[in-house]
Amino acid sequence: MKPSRMEAFSDGVFAVAITLLVFNLKVPDVSAGHLGTSLSSQWPSYVAYVISFLSIGVCWVNHHSILDRVAMVDRNLLFTNLGLLLGIVSIPFTTSLAATWFNQGSNARLAVGIYCANWVYVSCFFMLTIHHLMEHEHLSSNATGTTLRSLWRKGSIGIVAYLSATLCALFYPVVAFSICLILAAYYVFGVAEDARKTE
Amino acid sequence: MKPSRMEAFSDGVFAVAITLLVFNLKVPDVSAGHLGTSLSSQWPSYVAYVISFLSIGVCWVNHHSILDRVAMVDRNLLFTNLGLLLGIVSIPFTTSLAATWFNQGSNARLAVGIYCANWVYVSCFFMLTIHHLMEHEHLSSNATGTTLRSLWRKGSIGIVAYLSATLCALFYPVVAFSICLILAAYYVFGVAEDARKTE
Amino acid sequence: MKPSRMEAFSDGVFAVAITLLVFNLKVPDVSAGHLGTSLSSQWPSYVAYVISFLSIGVCWVNHHSILDRVAMVDRNLLFTNLGLLLGIVSIPFTTSLAATWFNQGSNARLAVGIYCANWVYVSCFFMLTIHHLMEHEHLSSNATGTTLRSLWRKGSIGIVAYLSATLCALFYPVVAFSICLILAAYYVFGVAEDARKTE
Amino acid sequence: MKPSRMEAFSDGVFAVAITLLVFNLKVPDVSAGHLGTSLSSQWPSYVAYVISFLSIGVCWVNHHSILDRVAMVDRNLLFTNLGLLLGIVSIPFTTSLAATWFNQGSNARLAVGIYCANWVYVSCFFMLTIHHLMEHEHLSSNATGTTLRSLWRKGSIGIVAYLSATLCALFYPVVAFSICLILAAYYVFGVAEDARKTE
Repeated sequence: MKPSRMEAFSDGVFAVAITLLVFNLKVPDVSAGHLGTSLSSQWPSYVAYVISFLSIGVCWVNHHSILDRVAMVDRNLLFTNLGLLLGIVSIPFTTSLAATWFNQGSNARLAVGIYCANWVYVSCFFMLTIHHLMEHEHLSSNATGTTLRSLWRKGSIGIVAYLSATLCALFYPVVAFSICLILAAYYVFGVAEDARKTE
Repeated sequence: MKPSRMEAFSDGVFAVAITLLVFNLKVPDVSAGHLGTSLSSQWPSYVAYVISFLSIGVCWVNHHSILDRVAMVDRNLLFTNLGLLLGIVSIPFTTSLAATWFNQGSNARLAVGIYCANWVYVSCFFMLTIHHLMEHEHLSSNATGTTLRSLWRKGSIGIVAYLSATLCALFYPVVAFSICLILAAYYVFGVAEDARKTE
Repeated sequence: MKPSRMEAFSDGVFAVAITLLVFNLKVPDVSAGHLGTSLSSQWPSYVAYVISFLSIGVCWVNHHSILDRVAMVDRNLLFTNLGLLLGIVSIPFTTSLAATWFNQGSNARLAVGIYCANWVYVSCFFMLTIHHLMEHEHLSSNATGTTLRSLWRKGSIGIVAYLSATLCALFYPVVAFSICLILAAYYVFGVAEDARKTE
Repeated sequence: MKPSRMEAFSDGVFAVAITLLVFNLKVPDVSAGHLGTSLSSQWPSYVAYVISFLSIGVCWVNHHSILDRVAMVDRNLLFTNLGLLLGIVSIPFTTSLAATWFNQGSNARLAVGIYCANWVYVSCFFMLTIHHLMEHEHLSSNATGTTLRSLWRKGSIGIVAYLSATLCALFYPVVAFSICLILAAYYVFGVAEDARKTE
């Protein structure tokens, strides 16, 4: 199987995940006069929406960067890619879960914890993919070791940070959510930085 | 990052936004015999649907026109594009908000105001993108100054008009809605006019 | 504007329309033991789903056939295409409307009538597009008069048949629905026939 | 009609089917404190989601493999492809049906039975397509007999296994579900094995 086919399949799935994020924003069904209050009480949805939008955007860019270097798709790549996509597709669900329960006591811990764990899962599959490509040089098109290593470094930071966020969520969901926001910003800047360098 | 990748990402997101507009049209759940009445009372949904459909269509065309001129994507372009897409993706939500509350007193002002403000936001990010391209000529492929300037002119009209619409909405939602409709028509004609000229 | 851009925009919208058709099939929310009865009572949804699926499929194929012949997009083509897409995107809504109310007395007439009228609208815009291309030969790529004429002929049959279906719907919704089914089959066969000829 | 057009149409529809699978995962609407219990009671949804995700993924890959060998689309191919897509698009609906009713007595048999029957339907149309290509060699691009035969072999296993699953479902829905899971895994491994061989 050529990488282009895997790329097309993956692009479709990424587009899905981003599509479904928008279902997070809901038109309130309240009695007249309370629209403003109801809209502002939905603020965790807006924050979660922005975090997940940026994060998935960054994942898409990174996924493309990785696949651009792949010359041949083998068995393990196929598996890790399917696993990665399963994780991405679940993000709209876990985003919605975290946003819905963010303001509601003990459930917030579980909901935000699941959201962060979803990102741990995604990061792990990114690392597995990169690791496999680094181990099997014949799968890559010409010398790109440095860039894979830089993606690997960024990925490690991601796993550690998302793991901490997951643990945090069990005590302070707000802190966990903030870590996710900071990470999204960090990655967006990272992508921009890469773009500047190639420039 | 090559512009083609940013274009593919953006196209997916535009398609999403247009998809979700259609959820605005709802099958009424009324008792037998009242289908006609119920369907006609939904008229703000139909109007809002047409306005947003045309407006997003025009944005897609303009986004393509801009990206066709980009030879290289730098840090700022990446940011303004992400910001622009966030705005576009929110349109189905704000459209639905405006349509649902259009006939319901004081809430209509807030709902229509948010809808117009969403378009102000989108226009601003369009202007930021065009401005950055005009300032940094090395990012553009061969001499296209005039066309960027023409997009800039149209964009300025948009910002001013949508800002007025947002202010209007706080007093007369109907007038604000009409401004949006007129602007959509104006831009569709503008695109058609451009097509005629190149012809 | 090049036809390829209009094609990409249109393809996205066609994919949307077909996506939303599937929301027509609903998991019944009934008490235990009544699943079978509830599923079978939904039969108009299944029929409507198949009719609209085939019809939109045929429209997509025909839309491609037309655009393959276009060398240049002018003002009128842009307008008729936007109008056509608005019609296609509304099909999932009108399909759902017709299916929901098909078994419920007087409302069935209105609902099925609207569904048929939607197809009249789509046919009209197809005809407008073809007519414009026939009148302005410089817009088309090399000699394709016969095929445009054949599309025109099929389109005329469509308008007449869908108009009759709309009138029928006001008295016998079942007959109107059957006309739509027969037309879908006729067009699928027509497309297949064309494929056989080029073979 | 060229195969590329049929491929583009099909890709859109496959992306749809995978999109709608995600609607299977629902944010529970329970009182505070019961989120964990409610989420875990939804386990059939998660299992069904993974099974269908993998199965549709495999179908997409196989569909591409088949179309890669097609040089010309004739009347029968067009029909069998439309029929196949109808089946794929219905999967999210039948998945949701099976997951919703899996834990609820007698209805589980019907719901899981319909889910398995949907895969029988899809397998049949895959076989029809492959059979037609094997019979009419002029439709294929250069010598690919062996691979078609290997797809045919895998397809036969699929039909037999899904038929058994459908029958099983009438008595033991759990067993039927397990067969579907095993088949999905078998096909994913099969695809990976093919990838390894070409390597």
